[in-house]
Amino acid sequence: MAVYTDVTDADLVAFLEAFDLGTLLSFKGIAEGVENSNFLLRTEAGNFILTLYEKRVREGDLPFFIGLMEHLAARGLSCPLPVRARDGEALHRLAGRPAAIVSFLEGMWVRRPRTAHCHAVGVALARMHEAAADFTITRANGLAMPNWRPLFETARARADGIEPGLEAFLAAELDFLEANWPTGLPTGVIHADLFPDNVFFLREELSGLIDFYFACNDLLAYDLSICVNAWCFEPDMTLNVTKAKALIDGYESVRKLEPEERDAFHILARGSAIRFLLTRLFDWVNVPPGALVTPKDPLEYVRRLRFHQRATKPGDYGMEL
Amino acid sequence: MAVYTDVTDADLVAFLEAFDLGTLLSFKGIAEGVENSNFLLRTEAGNFILTLYEKRVREGDLPFFIGLMEHLAARGLSCPLPVRARDGEALHRLAGRPAAIVSFLEGMWVRRPRTAHCHAVGVALARMHEAAADFTITRANGLAMPNWRPLFETARARADGIEPGLEAFLAAELDFLEANWPTGLPTGVIHADLFPDNVFFLREELSGLIDFYFACNDLLAYDLSICVNAWCFEPDMTLNVTKAKALIDGYESVRKLEPEERDAFHILARGSAIRFLLTRLFDWVNVPPGALVTPKDPLEYVRRLRFHQRATKPGDYGMEL
Repeated sequence: MAVYTDVTDADLVAFLEAFDLGTLLSFKGIAEGVENSNFLLRTEAGNFILTLYEKRVREGDLPFFIGLMEHLAARGLSCPLPVRARDGEALHRLAGRPAAIVSFLEGMWVRRPRTAHCHAVGVALARMHEAAADFTITRANGLAMPNWRPLFETARARADGIEPGLEAFLAAELDFLEANWPTGLPTGVIHADLFPDNVFFLREELSGLIDFYFACNDLLAYDLSICVNAWCFEPDMTLNVTKAKALIDGYESVRKLEPEERDAFHILARGSAIRFLLTRLFDWVNVPPGALVTPKDPLEYVRRLRFHQRATKPGDYGMEL
Repeated sequence: MAVYTDVTDADLVAFLEAFDLGTLLSFKGIAEGVENSNFLLRTEAGNFILTLYEKRVREGDLPFFIGLMEHLAARGLSCPLPVRARDGEALHRLAGRPAAIVSFLEGMWVRRPRTAHCHAVGVALARMHEAAADFTITRANGLAMPNWRPLFETARARADGIEPGLEAFLAAELDFLEANWPTGLPTGVIHADLFPDNVFFLREELSGLIDFYFACNDLLAYDLSICVNAWCFEPDMTLNVTKAKALIDGYESVRKLEPEERDAFHILARGSAIRFLLTRLFDWVNVPPGALVTPKDPLEYVRRLRFHQRATKPGDYGMEL
C-alpha cells in the first residue's frame, strides 16, 4: 500500500486546469503499488488514476513508460491510457513530483489464480510482446542478469541471518547463472513484473494489464518465466504443472517459443526466481523504521529456486517435447 | 492510511450476492482512515465505500453508527448512507470482520481551510446536532472527561520523554478539568471527530460529512470546541479568531448557544484539546514496529491547550458578548 506524497486539493485543482477533464469531483489515495503514489480521481469526464512518480522511478525513464502504454493501447491491448493535457503532453509535475493521469481500468486482480486465469495471462503476455515489437524507444533492464551480483553484494552479509547457508547458496547460484545464461534468444519489450496484482479480470475474462514501470528490453522467454514463478506455484511452493502448461500454452497460442527458448526455460526460471529473491532480500534487510510497506518474504523465492534447480527439461514445466 | 484486512475478489463477489448492486466492476483499498479498512467499490449500480470494521471499533456500537447515518441522511444531511442488503440489514460479515457498504460521497477535504470553510462547518455541525435530536439509540462517549485520567495513567511515565515537564502539566490540567467541568449544558449526539479530513467540499460548497465512528452522546458545545481546535488554529498553533468567529457564527445561524455554553466554552476547548492530546500521546508511545500509520504529534495539542488556558471569556473566541 502506498501514498508517499500528499496532494492538496488546491494543488490538484490547479494541476487539472491543464487538462480537459471538467470539474474535479473526488480524489482518494489508493493503498496499492509500492513504487509510486496513486490516487483515484473522479472528474466530470469519468474515473482516472493519478500517479505521482516517486524517487525509485528514474525520471528519464518516464517517456518510455508513458509511450509504451500509448503504443500498446493503440494496438488494442487493454492497459491504462495516459491522458494528454491541452499542451499535448501526458507528463507534468504535481507536488514536486512528475505526475501523469491514466484511464481507469475496470476489473479486479485475482488472489487465488486458477488454471483458466493462467492461460489468459499467457495469451495477454504474448499479445503484449507482439504489440510492442515495433515500439521504438528502448530501456535497459536495470535488474537484468549482470545486475544481480552487485545487488547480492549489498545484502550478502545479512543473508545467513534470514536462513543459515543462504549466502553460500546464492553465491553458487549466481556462479551458475553467469556461466550458463542463454545468449541469442529473441528479445523485445517485456513487462518484467506481471504478477497477479498487475492483471485485472472482469466476469472471468482478462480485462487488462497494469503497472508497466518495470518494463524494459530483455529476453521474451524470461518474461514468461517470471509469470510462471508468479502465477503457477501453490502456497506450499510446489509448481502446479497444470497451471504452468496452461500459461505457456496460452502464450504459444499467440507466439510460438523457439526450441532454444524451451530448452533454456529452466535456466530463465532460475534467473527470474533469483531476481525477485534478491530484491526481496534487499528490501528485507533495508526496511526503514516506520515503513509503510511490509516487505515480502524472500524465502518463498528460495523455495521456487530450489524447484527450478531440479528441473532440466521443457517437460518439467508441462511443455510438450 | 489504512487497509488492515485484505479482501479476496472471490469473498467480495460472494458478499455482494446478498445485495442488489449488480456485477462487481472494481475494488481498491483506500489509503484513508486509521480505524477501519476502507475500499472503493464500483458495481453496475455505481460507486460505494466498503468498510470492514477492525478491532478498535466495538461491534456492539455498529447499530448506533449505521442507524445514525440512516437517520441523518433521512433528514437531509449529506452523509454516507448505508446500503441495505436484500435481508433488510446493512451490517454483514466479510473476511471475518463486520462490514457495511455505504454510498460514495463526492467532494474533497480541504487541506488548508479558509474562513468560509470554517463557517460552513459550523452550519453543518449545528444541522447535524438538530437532525440527530430525535435519534433514539444512545452511545456513551468512551473518550469523555472521566476517561481522560485513566488514559493519561497508561502513558504518563513516558510523557516527559516527549517534552520535559509534560507529565506534571497534564496532571495539573486534569485536576483543573475534573474540578471545573461544566454540568447542566445541553447534550445530544455529537460527531466528536469533525476534523477537516471528515468534511467534503465540492465547488467551494460543503458536500457532506463522513466518519461517524466516534459519534456519541455528550455536550453539544463540546463538539463545537473540537471543531475550533481542528479548524481554526494556524500552523504556528495560534488561534485565528476570524475563523473561530466564522465557525461559531455558522453554528449559531442554526442553533443559538445558551449563555452557559458560551461562558464554559474555554473550558470545553481545554477539554477537547487534552482529549486529542492524550490519544495522540497514547498512540505515540504505543506505535508498533512496522506500523502502517504514522502517529500524529501530541505536542501540537499542548500548544493549543496553552492557548485555551489563557482564554477566560467568550470574546477570546470571537463570540460577541
